[in-house]
Amino acid sequence: MTNEVVKDITANILLAAGAAPAMVEHPDEAAEFAAIADALLINLGTLDDYQMHAMRRAIDSANRARKPWVLDPVAVGPLTTRTRFAREILQHRPTLIRGNASEIIALAALDGSTPKGRGVDSGDTSEAALAAAAALNAQTGAIVLVTGPIDYAVGPTRTLTCSNGHELLTRVTGVGCAQGALAAACLAVADNPMKAAATAAALIALAGELAAPRAPHPGSFRAALLDELDRITPDTIRRHARLECHA
Amino acid sequence: MTNEVVKDITANILLAAGAAPAMVEHPDEAAEFAAIADALLINLGTLDDYQMHAMRRAIDSANRARKPWVLDPVAVGPLTTRTRFAREILQHRPTLIRGNASEIIALAALDGSTPKGRGVDSGDTSEAALAAAAALNAQTGAIVLVTGPIDYAVGPTRTLTCSNGHELLTRVTGVGCAQGALAAACLAVADNPMKAAATAAALIALAGELAAPRAPHPGSFRAALLDELDRITPDTIRRHARLECHA
Amino acid sequence: MTNEVVKDITANILLAAGAAPAMVEHPDEAAEFAAIADALLINLGTLDDYQMHAMRRAIDSANRARKPWVLDPVAVGPLTTRTRFAREILQHRPTLIRGNASEIIALAALDGSTPKGRGVDSGDTSEAALAAAAALNAQTGAIVLVTGPIDYAVGPTRTLTCSNGHELLTRVTGVGCAQGALAAACLAVADNPMKAAATAAALIALAGELAAPRAPHPGSFRAALLDELDRITPDTIRRHARLECHA
Repeated sequence: MTNEVVKDITANILLAAGAAPAMVEHPDEAAEFAAIADALLINLGTLDDYQMHAMRRAIDSANRARKPWVLDPVAVGPLTTRTRFAREILQHRPTLIRGNASEIIALAALDGSTPKGRGVDSGDTSEAALAAAAALNAQTGAIVLVTGPIDYAVGPTRTLTCSNGHELLTRVTGVGCAQGALAAACLAVADNPMKAAATAAALIALAGELAAPRAPHPGSFRAALLDELDRITPDTIRRHARLECHA
Repeated sequence: MTNEVVKDITANILLAAGAAPAMVEHPDEAAEFAAIADALLINLGTLDDYQMHAMRRAIDSANRARKPWVLDPVAVGPLTTRTRFAREILQHRPTLIRGNASEIIALAALDGSTPKGRGVDSGDTSEAALAAAAALNAQTGAIVLVTGPIDYAVGPTRTLTCSNGHELLTRVTGVGCAQGALAAACLAVADNPMKAAATAAALIALAGELAAPRAPHPGSFRAALLDELDRITPDTIRRHARLECHA
Repeated sequence: MTNEVVKDITANILLAAGAAPAMVEHPDEAAEFAAIADALLINLGTLDDYQMHAMRRAIDSANRARKPWVLDPVAVGPLTTRTRFAREILQHRPTLIRGNASEIIALAALDGSTPKGRGVDSGDTSEAALAAAAALNAQTGAIVLVTGPIDYAVGPTRTLTCSNGHELLTRVTGVGCAQGALAAACLAVADNPMKAAATAAALIALAGELAAPRAPHPGSFRAALLDELDRITPDTIRRHARLECHA
């Protein structure tokens, strides 16, 4: 369940990576489908009243069916309705949270502090969000994926970093949101949520890094990014991913 | 009237093929526009309560104005609300129905039998759906287009098949849905619904087949598919389309 | 705030041009965000009841915060609900209006006259809309950008024309709508609304003109258009833009 702007790129990134996306809007159907799907994404990017209702139903259904779910708190902080809604659904144990630094800081705070972001762009560095990510993990149990020039997957005992990537990934709408969706897909097949977060981060970052040299502008880069996601093999990841584990 | 995920690719495929798409959401306007448009598409992919209301109004208006309409029963079967809605609107005489094998089987059944599909992917082969397609045609009068590796257009006295295509067509989101939209566009200009169904099937399948050799991954394939649709001429179809008629 | 079909291309065109798009749907959040954003776009393409409510709140908020806003009256004329809504919000002083010839004529009339357009395609030439544009400007104070083979930015004392462009710009869905969004972005940084209108017109027209020779079909043209927008510099505009000022 994602926002209106990124549905096309999200579905195409999931298909290119080998996943099977389906998007459902009706509250009854969202509840039905969350129980039979392998994972659920909750992205707050273009929240409205109807979608909040459907998301509550879907989260409840996923939890009852013991299916993993991902929270992507797009633009939480400056916008009141989604911030209140994020605080509410945070009580329902997301498996993984994906956001930029400002979103993670705002989500961890939820106490009236003024975050630096405005909308979807982060005004904070990922490093500045690590304490907030650790607090969120302690509070909710969710693995927290802070995406940015370096991506951080923050768990209870260790942090994984991915330092692949390319600036063009920020010039195509919805890549960050699709990364949250890909994390949900990875939860369905990975051994554990830390591995799912790191895999989703590495797949997008590495595909972007491989695409940029031959597609140095955002229109052709979007196509090249999907092509590279399709071409990536476990061997590509082993050879090119710059993943590090910090205790 | 189509789902949230595929609006961009649907509009672009229609434009590339020379049609003039317009998408209208408000119930009053949907009714107004269905009367002046040349054909109407009803795609159930991301149905919600508001859209069901608008679709009822549009179908009624199209029928009064004697305009053709296409039903695309996305994911009918496993999801209750759209299955009930599909059963309802099936009474209002669609001109053409486009679906994958699982959707056509589920639509023909609508009796509690459990179809194999989950969401938008078909768990059945097109061949397995031919009896269901014939039953649907007998029940509703609609030409039934079952899309898959081979596409079948099933009418009362004969079946047309199109064996062009490429696997990459399943790796770009919305191509099947856009095929339903293209069938609606073809209804506006073809002599009869069988020809419209076969033309829509052949255009997409052939464009995909021509695009794949020079764009073997899904990102660039999407662009190449649209390019080929723009380039296709009646002569391309005569020379390359593998269409067969079965009595 | 734009229509369902064009959100992806709109966001990508804005990102390629260096702007920072955000799309907000909830009425409360739309009002909140319109006050902190630098400009607001109101595009009527897929209007529904919920969005009308959110748009009223956003326009009111933008006006209170003295932020510029753009009206894009997609398909006003043949469709009743949006035509009535356009008449209503026209009273709230848009800074700029962007439409094709039929839309501008219908918006200026709003008196029961029958425009020639059907949906989003213009049945009138831009030249035929100049008197309507001047009337709209006199009535509302808004700069009126009439887009077509030649684009006209109509102000109280002069008209700017841009004669760059390419026919392929009409074969990719949402380019006209994205031009309205780009005009909003330009309002945030330009000295005055005439300059913003002319800049938005020239950026899209010139990028299309530069993209077409190397991408002569609509699928690859879409990517090339975004690439060219990213590559355009003030120098490109000075050297290649065919802008004229008519007193």
